[in-house]
Amino acid sequence: MWVYEKKLQYPVNVSRKNVHLAKWIITQYGGPDGELAASLRYLNQRYSMPTERGKATLNDIGTEELAHLEIVGTLVYKLTKDATVAELKAAGLGGHYADHDRALFYVDANGHPWTAEYIQAKGDPIADLLENMAVEQKARATYNWLINLSDDPQVTDVLRFLREREVVHFQRFGETLNYIQEFMDSKKCF
Amino acid sequence: MWVYEKKLQYPVNVSRKNVHLAKWIITQYGGPDGELAASLRYLNQRYSMPTERGKATLNDIGTEELAHLEIVGTLVYKLTKDATVAELKAAGLGGHYADHDRALFYVDANGHPWTAEYIQAKGDPIADLLENMAVEQKARATYNWLINLSDDPQVTDVLRFLREREVVHFQRFGETLNYIQEFMDSKKCF
Amino acid sequence: MWVYEKKLQYPVNVSRKNVHLAKWIITQYGGPDGELAASLRYLNQRYSMPTERGKATLNDIGTEELAHLEIVGTLVYKLTKDATVAELKAAGLGGHYADHDRALFYVDANGHPWTAEYIQAKGDPIADLLENMAVEQKARATYNWLINLSDDPQVTDVLRFLREREVVHFQRFGETLNYIQEFMDSKKCF
Amino acid sequence: MWVYEKKLQYPVNVSRKNVHLAKWIITQYGGPDGELAASLRYLNQRYSMPTERGKATLNDIGTEELAHLEIVGTLVYKLTKDATVAELKAAGLGGHYADHDRALFYVDANGHPWTAEYIQAKGDPIADLLENMAVEQKARATYNWLINLSDDPQVTDVLRFLREREVVHFQRFGETLNYIQEFMDSKKCF
Amino acid sequence: MWVYEKKLQYPVNVSRKNVHLAKWIITQYGGPDGELAASLRYLNQRYSMPTERGKATLNDIGTEELAHLEIVGTLVYKLTKDATVAELKAAGLGGHYADHDRALFYVDANGHPWTAEYIQAKGDPIADLLENMAVEQKARATYNWLINLSDDPQVTDVLRFLREREVVHFQRFGETLNYIQEFMDSKKCF
Amino acid sequence: MWVYEKKLQYPVNVSRKNVHLAKWIITQYGGPDGELAASLRYLNQRYSMPTERGKATLNDIGTEELAHLEIVGTLVYKLTKDATVAELKAAGLGGHYADHDRALFYVDANGHPWTAEYIQAKGDPIADLLENMAVEQKARATYNWLINLSDDPQVTDVLRFLREREVVHFQRFGETLNYIQEFMDSKKCF
Repeated sequence: MWVYEKKLQYPVNVSRKNVHLAKWIITQYGGPDGELAASLRYLNQRYSMPTERGKATLNDIGTEELAHLEIVGTLVYKLTKDATVAELKAAGLGGHYADHDRALFYVDANGHPWTAEYIQAKGDPIADLLENMAVEQKARATYNWLINLSDDPQVTDVLRFLREREVVHFQRFGETLNYIQEFMDSKKCF
Repeated sequence: MWVYEKKLQYPVNVSRKNVHLAKWIITQYGGPDGELAASLRYLNQRYSMPTERGKATLNDIGTEELAHLEIVGTLVYKLTKDATVAELKAAGLGGHYADHDRALFYVDANGHPWTAEYIQAKGDPIADLLENMAVEQKARATYNWLINLSDDPQVTDVLRFLREREVVHFQRFGETLNYIQEFMDSKKCF
Repeated sequence: MWVYEKKLQYPVNVSRKNVHLAKWIITQYGGPDGELAASLRYLNQRYSMPTERGKATLNDIGTEELAHLEIVGTLVYKLTKDATVAELKAAGLGGHYADHDRALFYVDANGHPWTAEYIQAKGDPIADLLENMAVEQKARATYNWLINLSDDPQVTDVLRFLREREVVHFQRFGETLNYIQEFMDSKKCF
Repeated sequence: MWVYEKKLQYPVNVSRKNVHLAKWIITQYGGPDGELAASLRYLNQRYSMPTERGKATLNDIGTEELAHLEIVGTLVYKLTKDATVAELKAAGLGGHYADHDRALFYVDANGHPWTAEYIQAKGDPIADLLENMAVEQKARATYNWLINLSDDPQVTDVLRFLREREVVHFQRFGETLNYIQEFMDSKKCF
Repeated sequence: MWVYEKKLQYPVNVSRKNVHLAKWIITQYGGPDGELAASLRYLNQRYSMPTERGKATLNDIGTEELAHLEIVGTLVYKLTKDATVAELKAAGLGGHYADHDRALFYVDANGHPWTAEYIQAKGDPIADLLENMAVEQKARATYNWLINLSDDPQVTDVLRFLREREVVHFQRFGETLNYIQEFMDSKKCF
Repeated sequence: MWVYEKKLQYPVNVSRKNVHLAKWIITQYGGPDGELAASLRYLNQRYSMPTERGKATLNDIGTEELAHLEIVGTLVYKLTKDATVAELKAAGLGGHYADHDRALFYVDANGHPWTAEYIQAKGDPIADLLENMAVEQKARATYNWLINLSDDPQVTDVLRFLREREVVHFQRFGETLNYIQEFMDSKKCF
């Protein structure tokens, strides 16, 4: 189980409201390679990892991605909470406003809702860990594109932090893959 | 952010492997009115609640539903982890095995993947809280039907605990709705 | 069965073509809390209501929501039928035009198609009626946001009528919930 | 708008409860080529037909398909309403029971929810009418396969009636296509 | 099996980068009536056609639609590959950029991903061939609307070629329908 | 463009009709990690690979996966084409029969339709190639589970061939990843 600690893993400041930027960043909240997808993927795969160390790694990173989801949600919320209806219209978010006002929702930048079809769990630790390494690279790429879209240095700073964490996770999954492969070879179960 | 505490909110024991039962219970893991839907709904709605107390209630219950998600996942995993391929075939889970082995996945009992289309956030606290009250009743109903399907008293015991918690959440959302309505009347903002 | 009566439940006039406004209003045609969702939900739940009076209420309101679907469709159609291709492009409806010309379609304001995942039927009348009360509040909220987006007083008048009806339905579902709870208590079947 | 008339377009009798049969027939309630898909498709296409006669045909048939939806719903409900939990389990409907009890839902025979992705409206009357002719043939084929699956003569009788109506609709759409093509040639607008 | 031949079925030239146009044309890549839908539909239906000639027609056209998919993909890619981030933002493709950079993806003009729910196979050759005739008309209509949206004569030339091919396919499916109906009458198997 | 060569890449023989086995194998036709997903993913990613060699590798493997799609389709078709309605019912394929007769369809083993949400293209060659390596491992895992489910040695032989090819593709993508990383380092463009 999880205990909530009332702080963000990394401070979120924004220079000003910025509805366009929020519209794009939301894909890391509810899009195909975003933080929700990462967290739910790893927490779900925990059960079928063959060793305690493997389970613990997935649990740690899955829990950290929940914190990242909260960071991205806070970013989007701060960028939009004071927007006028006219500003939402102008940024192409009239449709979001019609259904959700300024509330968050688990969608990509086109308003497409999140689906578990984005993720996978094969019961095969090699396949799952490679999937996770790919996911971290895809998330890194998304943060790259978001940084290119950003015109707010304070937002960019948060995006850089999140991108850096994906690189760290990529390396941890790589190490776990090596370790699990050795374990499975020694067990002759693969 | 969340800190993981290595225990379940409620102990999960099963009398024996029971693949059929797991196939149905999984809907509270990844189905339309299950624990994932509840947790993600409340944690997402936090941002647009108009008072700190409202945000805190959603945060508390959203966090508890994450613990329930873990309980349901553990139930399903314990009921299936030692199943043979023949047993999975016989229970109509050959399809799940082909794509996921004995891993968990966020699906309903027919293998339909979870989608954010199941949930909503309107930016209107009255609408959101009534949605949440309805959700808790729908989850209660699902636990009723699962209890009727269960032939394992230890599993039934866990399902009863989870059903009870939904009733408690229903009441807390009802109280929050009353309080928020008073707050909004006093603010004349609704 | 239903008999078509060639009139609208409420007259639909628009001041001028207005493609932007149509793009947002369409969510009450084919979006998550729109009239299609409401009508199909209630007509489907009829079968499992435990009393004739409960069935009749769902049937009445479900049939009225079909009339509202027609009102919303007529609104959208009148706002767009004479639009030029250039106007559709400018309003961000080039994509709708490419696939549907100026025809209607059951989508939300982002072009996301309607799905039955938006609705539910639990076979539990308490849960279903609370779901319906929540739905009416969510529809009311959407009409609020659409009224804020509207710059055409004649359209606003229609949206106000539809919002008012949702409030009436909310109250009728509330009364039905009370009555059904009494009935079930007296039957000791709940 | 529509007025409800409290009768079925065709009487629905079933010889006995028959959960397996209901599981398959439900696809004509909420599946890809079922009555919901037909009704919503035609009622939606009305707006962009170029003549009053074309609009009226779509309106008539769309309204009749609503009556067919009710017939199919009544069939499914009568076949399942008295089923025990054990019977639902045995027919592979444990998953449906877990989420919906014995309530109806807009799904195909595998429990896949209905989506507007099944239907289309192109704003081009030739394309739309040919789509509708194809739809009627697809519905006819589904009724063929359902008749082959049926082991209840009373149910088969209803399925035959519904199949017959699809053939009649196919012919009416064919006549409408001819008429509209002549109209458009004379208008030189196509 | 298929052998790749390194040429396009029809040359693709564009006058200049044109991000808006690409955004709309992509629906024929991954939208409901696009080339992917056509190709996958026909190649899948091959198996259940009752004669070799029927199978061959579906195989031929299905293979040609793959070539068209490549033409459309090349169009979209040439129109966007040199776009700046600012140009993508301005064309409403900031969301596409955030998730895919300038890569192609199987989506419609609103970013909605392709799904097999768009297509059908009934095992009934009459129904399948009528579906295919309707599909070709729907694709023709989409090309009409895209030609109306196009402001690049070289792109329009390619779109006209593709539209022309849909008309030819429509005729071939019509001939196949006649031939199959005769075959089935003579076999008395329908 | 592609030219069809009328042979299978690998011969497909089956010992006898075997509806259960077909029901599971179909996930490699239209499921999340199947041959359709692989082929469409690679052919789509071609455009944004930075070198001709990278494009060619994706094109080759994407084209080969089309051949595998045909092999899997042929397997499923041969295993089911002579099945009686009673046999389809008994294997839990009554629902497939109701909508598709014995035709193929792009679904997973639970009848869930294929969607482009399963795949990705990031415009970042490192991310795309790692995704592809993960995909090949996931396909390998699925073939493992299908081989465990198979009770027909001739079918197992085909599944082994397909699994072997996934391993080869995994290695080719690994080599391509190394080569592209060197290229990008030398270009200093990453």
